[in-house]
Amino acid sequence: MRVAVLHAPRDVRVEDRPRPTVEAPTDAVVRLAATCVCGSDLWPYRGVEAVDGPSPMGHEYAGVVEEVGSEVTTVRPGDFVVGSFSASDNTCDICRVGYQTHCVDRQPGAATGAQAEYTRVPLADGTLVTTPGMPDDDLVPSLLAASDVLGTGWFGAVAAEVGPGKTVAVVGDGAVGLLGVLAARRLGAERVIAMSRHEPRQRLAREFGATDVVTERGDEGVARIRDMTDGLGAHSVIEAVGTQESMMQAIRATRAGGHVGYVGVSHDVSLPGEELFFSGVHLHGGPAPVRRFLPELIELITNREIDPGRVFDLELPLDQAAEGYAAMDERRAIKTLLRL
Amino acid sequence: MRVAVLHAPRDVRVEDRPRPTVEAPTDAVVRLAATCVCGSDLWPYRGVEAVDGPSPMGHEYAGVVEEVGSEVTTVRPGDFVVGSFSASDNTCDICRVGYQTHCVDRQPGAATGAQAEYTRVPLADGTLVTTPGMPDDDLVPSLLAASDVLGTGWFGAVAAEVGPGKTVAVVGDGAVGLLGVLAARRLGAERVIAMSRHEPRQRLAREFGATDVVTERGDEGVARIRDMTDGLGAHSVIEAVGTQESMMQAIRATRAGGHVGYVGVSHDVSLPGEELFFSGVHLHGGPAPVRRFLPELIELITNREIDPGRVFDLELPLDQAAEGYAAMDERRAIKTLLRL
Repeated sequence: MRVAVLHAPRDVRVEDRPRPTVEAPTDAVVRLAATCVCGSDLWPYRGVEAVDGPSPMGHEYAGVVEEVGSEVTTVRPGDFVVGSFSASDNTCDICRVGYQTHCVDRQPGAATGAQAEYTRVPLADGTLVTTPGMPDDDLVPSLLAASDVLGTGWFGAVAAEVGPGKTVAVVGDGAVGLLGVLAARRLGAERVIAMSRHEPRQRLAREFGATDVVTERGDEGVARIRDMTDGLGAHSVIEAVGTQESMMQAIRATRAGGHVGYVGVSHDVSLPGEELFFSGVHLHGGPAPVRRFLPELIELITNREIDPGRVFDLELPLDQAAEGYAAMDERRAIKTLLRL
Repeated sequence: MRVAVLHAPRDVRVEDRPRPTVEAPTDAVVRLAATCVCGSDLWPYRGVEAVDGPSPMGHEYAGVVEEVGSEVTTVRPGDFVVGSFSASDNTCDICRVGYQTHCVDRQPGAATGAQAEYTRVPLADGTLVTTPGMPDDDLVPSLLAASDVLGTGWFGAVAAEVGPGKTVAVVGDGAVGLLGVLAARRLGAERVIAMSRHEPRQRLAREFGATDVVTERGDEGVARIRDMTDGLGAHSVIEAVGTQESMMQAIRATRAGGHVGYVGVSHDVSLPGEELFFSGVHLHGGPAPVRRFLPELIELITNREIDPGRVFDLELPLDQAAEGYAAMDERRAIKTLLRL
């Protein structure tokens, strides 16, 4: 089968490798309906995270179960499934309270890479969620988004305790930030402020339910949010970047007693204890337990109540994965869908 | 009247100063029933926080209203009241959700110092809470504790989302940590682990409801907590110190999805973003909105359901305030009560 492999920074090649097979009795093999590039794939692509030899890439997947191990009971060959980038048993004490990314048995969800025709998914019973019947083709991008960026934006909104009557600010206008906007709106926020200076992303943010757009960032962005909230700050702020500047922007834009939900993977962030202490905010986040939200997200998508697949603004065949990475790296594309 | 004044590090003098009077129409003047020294008073005492000229000390107070301004409506001369170290209007959007320490009109609660015979309290209507009738003398230490250390420990437990069925660890065995133990128990925790290596404090922790004591600290302390919780960490950890070591100990002792409530005033703390991100914990704390809890705490104390005044293990006349500081500084006393 074909799979995108990162050999070194900016060196993505699509190669032939053996089709993965069931290795453990709890495994499933999934034939992907489509695949995609994630913003977090850009860290090793840019060399910011080390690449340790040729690495099959991709961790977002949706498709049809091809084969299951002898102990798998909840999915069968022929089922259409969506999974998360993190495989979980979904039965341990940590999973049962909704933190499947921290499962005591956690493993990578797409063990053999997911920018590929097939992937092997460990702990299939705890990881995969079936769709009601075979979805229409046009729903595939949205189901693929549920596998990570939608689930992550959703967790950011939940971690930020978004709810009715609240003002929510979103730091970051990548796919996760934009889907944080969608989540905030669906979860009942009264006002959703997207922080973005890129016109196409602003437009998509408004489509997803942003009521306001703020183009300033850093301290100026914080001042604008405070101006818009009687000087108090937003009730909830979703942080979807992961840098020092974006974290401080999120904390400072939140009112005392308010909530920061941070889902941008932290890189070189150091939070000043005294400022955090006197801010009086709540801080929660981390790698999103997408599994917690998948049943609800799949239902919203298959009922056509949300259309998160709109974040894919570039579509290429898998063979052109390298161009898909480059377009995202250069911010020519928000997110690249790779057709198989 | 007499008041304890800090002139320079380790130089506390009890001096005569004019009795405070009502300055603003929202002020009250309170005649203190007793006063005390707070762990946070030790920061300037030790010179860790700068002392900007002679400073009247103390911020914990309970006593009888002597005089009120023309706009004060909820308390009258003769009422016994308890207030917080932070004066608040109790009507703004921040107060109404229970974050009175971040009130848009916040001011120091004991404007003229509280290690004194009298103190002036601004925003009396929003700050002071009356007791049901005149309390018995033996309740005064507990009511005084409610003014800060009990309210702060209680907030730590609430911020750590303590509740039935949960395992709670408490980092710090000062008055706030010990009262965090009491709060955790009252709030229904199943297991309360006090982290302390001082025998008299361990004993008081057990009296307050600790089910276990851990003497290790730092990484060893974390390993012990994990051993006691199936390798997962505590559901809730109350941090009541404010140092880098204690914060990291608290974060690392908490399970993914669990809650750290931190109430030790941060000094030179810097939290590593990546570790925090992958920990999956909730973080909340800051200066405790004691006012939120005062009605409930006063009721528990006057009904003799809790006895937080047990944290006072040294009692001196106000004139010996200097010795009261020294005893706490040298850890000869947990907390000093100063009789007037």
